[in-house]
Amino acid sequence: MSQQKQIQLAKRPKGLPTKDVFHFETVDIPVPQDGEVLIQTKYVSVDPYMRGRMQDTKSYTPPFKLNEVIQGGVVGEVVESKSPQFEKGDFVLGFLGWQEYSTAKAESLTKIDPSIAPLSYYLGILGMPGQTAYFGLLAIGQPKEGETVVISGAAGAVGSVVGQIAKIKGAHVVGIAGSDDKLAYLKELGFDETINYKTTNDLNDAIEKACPNGVDVYFDNVGGEISDAVMNHLNRFARIPVCGAISSYNISTSEDIGPRVQTKLIKTSALMQGFIVANYSDRFGEAAKDLAQWVKEDKLTYKETIIEGFDNIPDAFLGLFKGENVGKQLVKIS
Amino acid sequence: MSQQKQIQLAKRPKGLPTKDVFHFETVDIPVPQDGEVLIQTKYVSVDPYMRGRMQDTKSYTPPFKLNEVIQGGVVGEVVESKSPQFEKGDFVLGFLGWQEYSTAKAESLTKIDPSIAPLSYYLGILGMPGQTAYFGLLAIGQPKEGETVVISGAAGAVGSVVGQIAKIKGAHVVGIAGSDDKLAYLKELGFDETINYKTTNDLNDAIEKACPNGVDVYFDNVGGEISDAVMNHLNRFARIPVCGAISSYNISTSEDIGPRVQTKLIKTSALMQGFIVANYSDRFGEAAKDLAQWVKEDKLTYKETIIEGFDNIPDAFLGLFKGENVGKQLVKIS
Repeated sequence: MSQQKQIQLAKRPKGLPTKDVFHFETVDIPVPQDGEVLIQTKYVSVDPYMRGRMQDTKSYTPPFKLNEVIQGGVVGEVVESKSPQFEKGDFVLGFLGWQEYSTAKAESLTKIDPSIAPLSYYLGILGMPGQTAYFGLLAIGQPKEGETVVISGAAGAVGSVVGQIAKIKGAHVVGIAGSDDKLAYLKELGFDETINYKTTNDLNDAIEKACPNGVDVYFDNVGGEISDAVMNHLNRFARIPVCGAISSYNISTSEDIGPRVQTKLIKTSALMQGFIVANYSDRFGEAAKDLAQWVKEDKLTYKETIIEGFDNIPDAFLGLFKGENVGKQLVKIS
Repeated sequence: MSQQKQIQLAKRPKGLPTKDVFHFETVDIPVPQDGEVLIQTKYVSVDPYMRGRMQDTKSYTPPFKLNEVIQGGVVGEVVESKSPQFEKGDFVLGFLGWQEYSTAKAESLTKIDPSIAPLSYYLGILGMPGQTAYFGLLAIGQPKEGETVVISGAAGAVGSVVGQIAKIKGAHVVGIAGSDDKLAYLKELGFDETINYKTTNDLNDAIEKACPNGVDVYFDNVGGEISDAVMNHLNRFARIPVCGAISSYNISTSEDIGPRVQTKLIKTSALMQGFIVANYSDRFGEAAKDLAQWVKEDKLTYKETIIEGFDNIPDAFLGLFKGENVGKQLVKIS
């Protein structure tokens, strides 16, 4: 067995991606060089952000290349090691291709511990979304007991974890989301107050009512008018982890206009900090341990949907845009 | 001698303040209570920001009250102490009234050392403007050798010190100001590049040319379109101390509209931090020591204009708006 399947980007989608965006190719299994390991793919993560990388525009991650293997979060097993950092049988998390086997430099991989949590969790609650929530909230937001934490995009993979961690830290937690179903879900997760920004007549007013003591931490997943409104309610020394700006993703820069933030920041000595989870990669282990512990203690609710079979990766990805998944969507490779 | 002169706010000015805004009153010299000291006024600071406090609008400092003594930065000598923290003959910096004598709680005063620098310096380069520059740049901006620091409002009392400290720290320093005279002054102070935002056709282009390696620190004194332009050139992990937004002071909130910053912060993992110098009051001594040392070593150029006589305080203040002062304007009380 020296050959394997891989999935390439055949063309750049317009609007909703379709199956013909993907191309299955049979290629040689690569041979690890010095300092590298060979990894057998166990779980593949499919995520909405990958849609963005299919487009040919500049961001903090470069676009996928046409006719090359698509890359994303993967959990795999080391089957051959030419690095002292890993042994055969180790499990790793990496940013790897949609293929059955990958080689990678040892330093680009994170060893993961299957005794702490199921392997799949390292692509969800213990992986990118969980880690993003963890570091954005705790390293930047730093909520103290009794403070008010507002989260936009609160029902998303990141926002729902942010709110639960904020509750663990003793904060008054307010979630903003766009449907009553989502609001009900947030209530289930223990959010104190929820706001449906689509049906609220006066967002400013709704925030004021939900935050009688003002806003100490605003975890911003969306940008746009929702953030404009929250910025009117900042307390002194408020912290704003800026995680996403989904309201801006589909409009041009020249259309993304709103109230300037400078005077609001000066009046409150508030902090806004943009971040991506990769900034904290050296503290991955610390976060995984805390998150796993909270899951174990049922303080952190986590849902995942797992489809089996390499060939089903495209369907799993396309399903994201039809709302087919409950919680994190993964593909298990047999 | 049990009476003294004080200057009260007689009415709120419209447009440029005039002399009839002020009223001289003779009042009793106050008697210090337990924990207080009695201070003889030596130097009074007159500052443009005080114009704002003459208006009845909300900000981080409340407006001056009508028919009460006007307050500002004062250096004085302790003439009677009912606090173990101070002795007769100590010199102090405080936020005190425009009057010949004041009482104040010991904890609201900072002891100053006349052996480090002339007393008057504690109201300028070692005082509010110098301290604002020091903490905004060093505590928030944290410039590293070889990094690029851009300063708006660069020729002001704060901006001109920021640029000089940034040079001391080995940065490439770019100043933005509004006249060629100011640009010449910045060059004298050692700024590497200067931009006249009033005569530059394309501010974006000018910033790009002045900052071939991008912007690591943007010390923002002005907000508005100048800041909108600088925000397009941020490097990864850029830091933006937000010190002032003078472009917004004379317009309504609903007019202060511009490009949203969220996506720019996310793409660069940049930090914006609003602040006022009072946030760092417990580190005043540390800053005063460094600033005094740099002045002594001629690394920091500092200009002051001193008028003598209590009765001349209103004229000194009104002169600020006629551009009569070179550098920091003070009044020495005989």
